[in-house]
Amino acid sequence: MTERRRRVRTRPDKQTLTRDAFTDVAVQLLRREGAHAITLRRLAAELDTGPASLYGHVGTMQELHALVVDHVLGAVALHPELEQHPQRRIEAVLDSYATVLFAHRGLAELTSGLIPHGPNTFALTETVVGCLLQLGLSAGRAAWGYDLLMLRMTAAAAEQDRRRDLDEPKTRAANAYQQIDPTLYPNIAAVHHHLFTGGRSRTAWAVRAILAGLTAAPEPDTTPPAR
Amino acid sequence: MTERRRRVRTRPDKQTLTRDAFTDVAVQLLRREGAHAITLRRLAAELDTGPASLYGHVGTMQELHALVVDHVLGAVALHPELEQHPQRRIEAVLDSYATVLFAHRGLAELTSGLIPHGPNTFALTETVVGCLLQLGLSAGRAAWGYDLLMLRMTAAAAEQDRRRDLDEPKTRAANAYQQIDPTLYPNIAAVHHHLFTGGRSRTAWAVRAILAGLTAAPEPDTTPPAR
Repeated sequence: MTERRRRVRTRPDKQTLTRDAFTDVAVQLLRREGAHAITLRRLAAELDTGPASLYGHVGTMQELHALVVDHVLGAVALHPELEQHPQRRIEAVLDSYATVLFAHRGLAELTSGLIPHGPNTFALTETVVGCLLQLGLSAGRAAWGYDLLMLRMTAAAAEQDRRRDLDEPKTRAANAYQQIDPTLYPNIAAVHHHLFTGGRSRTAWAVRAILAGLTAAPEPDTTPPAR
Repeated sequence: MTERRRRVRTRPDKQTLTRDAFTDVAVQLLRREGAHAITLRRLAAELDTGPASLYGHVGTMQELHALVVDHVLGAVALHPELEQHPQRRIEAVLDSYATVLFAHRGLAELTSGLIPHGPNTFALTETVVGCLLQLGLSAGRAAWGYDLLMLRMTAAAAEQDRRRDLDEPKTRAANAYQQIDPTLYPNIAAVHHHLFTGGRSRTAWAVRAILAGLTAAPEPDTTPPAR
């Protein structure tokens, strides 16, 4: 009887199989191995239970991914001390967002596979949209501008993640550009030595370019299309 | 003897196992089933041969992906008739690029997993960079601006591809934003009805916003970092 109880005790109580427990384990898997490791099978193994027993608790994989993304986005610094400096605040917040994405391999891809939502995601959105409104942008510009900024950040991080795995190094494609025939491709030849420079400073510049463009571009027509 | 010859003939000649043959088959797989179908095993099956016999011809998967991407990019309209109107030409070329990405599910993700190169890719780059230089941008702005424009186009298409597969529909996350508590998140509440509108017109607007930003942003420091 005691034996049996002890064996049962090494498995988690039914009550500990909460969404928080899943999220914690999934975030650990993300940190240690990357997004591809977040599968129901792996979660079940980590929680010492069977995959079937997870279905009722965790909902869809998208729901779990959304919980993981929202949890990790809690690490983004929202820089309330820059409240009076909206442009600098956006730059600082997005720089922190880039750091968080870079530290969690696969997070960018998880994020782009869903529409993130949850308290940490909302806090980030609220902050960035607030800065855009503070800068005097209309609601339409602020909404589409927020989307454009986040898409740039997430896409660049996802690209970086994928290119870490290339068996064909970046230098090979870069060489194809460096050695391009200037009689065939005079424009590429004129700019090619700038194409692969930058990294973090390129991200900062892209944020500034987009911010400048949000003001200078025509007012967006955000009316939903007629059905 | 006749029998045997006929059987042999149903397999491709060794000479037909060229890069062009692989690329054609891979492009067909992309069109019919999407990027995930492009594997050595499937290529071998389509060409009625064994996977081992492909290794010598096809190089790495990245090389094959680059060939596929470059082949499909041949369908992008480069609008030479707009040569005297660089802004309109960029908008038209990128609209065509969006159409090609949308028509080939998985192409955007393939593209972002490598640094595309090849004659059709170079023709597209040459055209867009040429327009940016025609608009009076410096080489650094043109190079980083080209990258920012293409990243926006490819990322939005990849996001759209991934979201076509969501078992949790877009409306669910959209609802989370629509029903947001305006006392907690006043900024999101102020813009939320613009967040999920647009589609193609949002892409056109994003291109205009980026173009406007490339002129208005500070000159980028494209110097490679010291080692």
